[in-house]
Amino acid sequence: MPDHASPECRAVNSVLARVGDKWSVLIIMLLGGGTKRFNEIKRMVGGISQRMLTLTLRGLERDGLITRTMFPTIPPRVDYELTDLGRSLWKAVEPLGLWARDHVPDIHKAHEKFDKRSKSNK
Amino acid sequence: MPDHASPECRAVNSVLARVGDKWSVLIIMLLGGGTKRFNEIKRMVGGISQRMLTLTLRGLERDGLITRTMFPTIPPRVDYELTDLGRSLWKAVEPLGLWARDHVPDIHKAHEKFDKRSKSNK
Repeated sequence: MPDHASPECRAVNSVLARVGDKWSVLIIMLLGGGTKRFNEIKRMVGGISQRMLTLTLRGLERDGLITRTMFPTIPPRVDYELTDLGRSLWKAVEPLGLWARDHVPDIHKAHEKFDKRSKSNK
Repeated sequence: MPDHASPECRAVNSVLARVGDKWSVLIIMLLGGGTKRFNEIKRMVGGISQRMLTLTLRGLERDGLITRTMFPTIPPRVDYELTDLGRSLWKAVEPLGLWARDHVPDIHKAHEKFDKRSKSNK
C-alpha cells in the first residue's frame, strides 16, 4: 500500500472516499447476496430516501460496479446486480465489514474511556 | 456478513461510514507504516487543514484506533501511533486499498462509457 501522498495514493483515496460513502458500501454488501429489485434494496437499507437511493445506485452504475436491468412489466421491474468489478470490490470490502462487526463493542468502550478522561481533565 | 438492515448491520454501517471518511482511512494507512509526528502526517496527507487534521486525529484517538504521545521538548513533539485495534483495522482495510489501487483505471473507463451512453440517450 502506498504510504505517502503520491498520485497513486490520491487515486486510492478518492476511491476509498467514494466507496466509503455509507450507502454505497451497504448496497454493495446487500447485492453481494444476489440480484435485488429497487424496492427490496430500499426496504433492506432502511432510512434512505427514494431520491438518495436512486442517486447512489446511479453512481454505482456509473462506476461500473452494478448493472441495472429494466423489465417492461406492469408495474416495471428494475433489477440491480453486481458486475465482475463490483463483485471484486465486494470481496475486498468483506474483511472491513467483518472487522466492523467484530469491533463495534471495542470502539464503544474506547469512546466511554476517552470521554471519561476528557471530562476529568476539565 | 449481515445482509439485511439488522441492528448488527446498522452497527457495521456506522463504523464503515466513520472509517470510510476520506482522511481517517488515509491516516490509518500512513500510520500503518509506523509512528508519525503531527507535521509529518500533515505533509504526507497534503491538502488537509490544521484544524481538520486535529479533529480527525482526535476522532481516531476517541475510537481507540491511535494513541497520541506528547514529548515536552521545545517545540513540543507529538507522536501518533496505531493501537492494536487500529493495527487490526489497518489490516482489514488493506484489501480495499489494494483493490482501489488496482481498479482506478477500470472505474475511469466505466465513467467514460456511462457518460457517453447517457449523452447518446438524450
